[in-house]
Amino acid sequence: MADAEASAANVDEAKPDAKTLQILRDMANRLRIHSIRATCASSSSGHPTSCSHAAEIMSVLFFHVMRYKQKDPENPDNDRFVFSKRLSFVDVAAGWLGQGLGAACGMAYTGKYFDKASYRVFCLVGDGESSGGSVWEALAFASHYSLDNLVAIFDVNRLAHSTALPLEHSIDVYQKRCEAFGWNTLVVDGRDVEALCQVFWQAAQMKNKPTAVVAKTFKGQGVPSVEDEENWHGKPMPKERADAIIKLIASRIETNKSLKPKAPVEDSPQVNISDIEMTSPPDYEARDMIATQKACGLALAKLGHANDRVIVLDGDTKNSTFSDTFKREHPERFIECFTAEQNMVSVALGCVTHGRTVAFACTFAAFWIRAFDQIRMGAISQTNINLIGSHCGVSVGEDGPSQMALEDLAMFRAIPNCKIFYPSDAISTEHAVFLAANTK
Amino acid sequence: MADAEASAANVDEAKPDAKTLQILRDMANRLRIHSIRATCASSSSGHPTSCSHAAEIMSVLFFHVMRYKQKDPENPDNDRFVFSKRLSFVDVAAGWLGQGLGAACGMAYTGKYFDKASYRVFCLVGDGESSGGSVWEALAFASHYSLDNLVAIFDVNRLAHSTALPLEHSIDVYQKRCEAFGWNTLVVDGRDVEALCQVFWQAAQMKNKPTAVVAKTFKGQGVPSVEDEENWHGKPMPKERADAIIKLIASRIETNKSLKPKAPVEDSPQVNISDIEMTSPPDYEARDMIATQKACGLALAKLGHANDRVIVLDGDTKNSTFSDTFKREHPERFIECFTAEQNMVSVALGCVTHGRTVAFACTFAAFWIRAFDQIRMGAISQTNINLIGSHCGVSVGEDGPSQMALEDLAMFRAIPNCKIFYPSDAISTEHAVFLAANTK
Repeated sequence: MADAEASAANVDEAKPDAKTLQILRDMANRLRIHSIRATCASSSSGHPTSCSHAAEIMSVLFFHVMRYKQKDPENPDNDRFVFSKRLSFVDVAAGWLGQGLGAACGMAYTGKYFDKASYRVFCLVGDGESSGGSVWEALAFASHYSLDNLVAIFDVNRLAHSTALPLEHSIDVYQKRCEAFGWNTLVVDGRDVEALCQVFWQAAQMKNKPTAVVAKTFKGQGVPSVEDEENWHGKPMPKERADAIIKLIASRIETNKSLKPKAPVEDSPQVNISDIEMTSPPDYEARDMIATQKACGLALAKLGHANDRVIVLDGDTKNSTFSDTFKREHPERFIECFTAEQNMVSVALGCVTHGRTVAFACTFAAFWIRAFDQIRMGAISQTNINLIGSHCGVSVGEDGPSQMALEDLAMFRAIPNCKIFYPSDAISTEHAVFLAANTK
Repeated sequence: MADAEASAANVDEAKPDAKTLQILRDMANRLRIHSIRATCASSSSGHPTSCSHAAEIMSVLFFHVMRYKQKDPENPDNDRFVFSKRLSFVDVAAGWLGQGLGAACGMAYTGKYFDKASYRVFCLVGDGESSGGSVWEALAFASHYSLDNLVAIFDVNRLAHSTALPLEHSIDVYQKRCEAFGWNTLVVDGRDVEALCQVFWQAAQMKNKPTAVVAKTFKGQGVPSVEDEENWHGKPMPKERADAIIKLIASRIETNKSLKPKAPVEDSPQVNISDIEMTSPPDYEARDMIATQKACGLALAKLGHANDRVIVLDGDTKNSTFSDTFKREHPERFIECFTAEQNMVSVALGCVTHGRTVAFACTFAAFWIRAFDQIRMGAISQTNINLIGSHCGVSVGEDGPSQMALEDLAMFRAIPNCKIFYPSDAISTEHAVFLAANTK
């Protein structure tokens, strides 16, 4: 494409014409109606108002910004979208509840450094969930690794489950915090589709930094007489009221047109992560006195030679867990996550989506309990990551009880479809690593 | 005391004379020697350099700033000090590992709002542990509740367990982050006792905001030929080398004087939290159909009348767990912690120290697993908090598996000295709340 055309196309993306904007508005209202219907149809205490405020954001993202094949959601070239907060637009019962941004970081890291592909990652984060520290672990991670293919949309609607949030609509505080965590930060009115097109276009121009879009929204936005009222979260709406509201929203729809999503750039490499074979059998003598963690580091390094999609994540313990053995041989496939275990698990979950990698995350066994919720959510989502915990049990001795993994087996036993390997020597360790790589 | 004298005393605290400064320097070096000796004496892979860098901070805090009775560490009027990071100065094997600032928040909240007393709370936070999100949950909490009796000292020594940290010595980034989280933030050279006296004096003048002191330090600071080297964390030091270093440090000591800590202001109220009796027996008819969470809210409110030191903490679920029943009757003893469960547990742990309160923290049972590490550390520290989890098991139905507490019993069963009550109706719920209040 000639430069002139490319630049014209860019301007178009930044400033769509009036007709396109109206279609985007109409599609937002259709999403809004769809979500009210879906909530009322279910017998549950759904959240009829908790999705309406994001309708314009979703419309602009899905029908103007993101590039994906609508009929092939598993296509690796598609842009990724992560609902971190809970929304009833989609058929997934629950969002990632504070963990989505970490998973989005894993996808963006994979896109930028392993796949070296054009796809981008978008993540919708709630203001309520950003009370949780794991969101800030993810923010620090993304800027440290210059994930410029990542856009987080902070949906600041002011209201949480039971109360208004401490920051209410202090958009400037969200902005300052995101900037302090190293993100390119853009503020936008979440009701204004034209402004949304503009900021997402700006985000796409950004180099070396992830972009945070801080969107001021209103709970129940666009739903007459509900907008910005407290205490609607989790409350059912009477059917007659819903019908009247749907009628009113429908009357604002001016077109019956819809927009097709843009096609993705097809530049993701083919990968194969099944049937990984070790390059050679274990090379230990009987009665060799080798610590299991040392054998584990060697086994991971060996596995890395067997398949170039094996990656290792570390929680600042690599010199103790011997995951630095892997790092020395495959530095480009090693992710240092520092002591942010929750985020490390979420990043690993993101890295393995679409079957892009086989991820091993390593730290002291005691520290996995910090990430129990992330591990549990991974299991619920039927994902496939490998967690290695070294230095288990009381044997760590003088490091004290805070470093002892005494609860880890109880925890992992409670995780559905979780397989636990507990090797006793170097040979069984190497085999356990091999089995883990090939076990769902 | 006359105003003139008070002001003179203040100036003295801000700018101590040369003699006092030299004694503080000498005491820092004595601490340094003590910690090297303690590390070498133990058989373990201690951290000979990981405490030296904080010696000046500790000396100034303990012998110039803090007010406490040295011979009565349990005195409720004492200023509190929390080691969040790990240090070998003290006889505690482990620090709070990212959880200390939350506990410090609980102590400061208790001091300001429940005790309404003069004692202040100081917390030493490592730069390594501030990779963990729970630190940022605590930062948000402290500024939201205007905890101006709280000082967090960020000990920025650049090096973590296995590597240099992402921010290295970017003091300005720490400053921006703390400011964005609403803290009064002061930057200081952690080696300079005069500057340290100055910033801690400034912190004491602050109204309505907690203060963060961002101290630039160097691992192994003041330990010749170790200062700022990577990879000393967790490494033992040969005895001859230690002796030579100790000799060198000792040669810098100019006085044999020491300073007495200042006496605390004795204005903490007397409290009694033992033998709490319900004001009346349960008032339910047999076969009353009352949800256990509703009965729990009523029981907590009743318990609040029985003892004015009963407090309740909520993780933005008060309208579902019915902890808002307690809030309506005892608003001044209700702490909204928002969806930051890790911090909520740490705050509760802080609130119950020195036996100042009986704390009940409430959220959905499913969410306790987010705070497994905090709960475990609470048990290791033999503290005494009560955690209430509502909406357990699969009965939450359509809210989806992320909201189901399926692992909570497995988790709590792995916690030492933890008692679990699982009531089946309103009467047993009320009795369970009563038993929990009186059970260690």
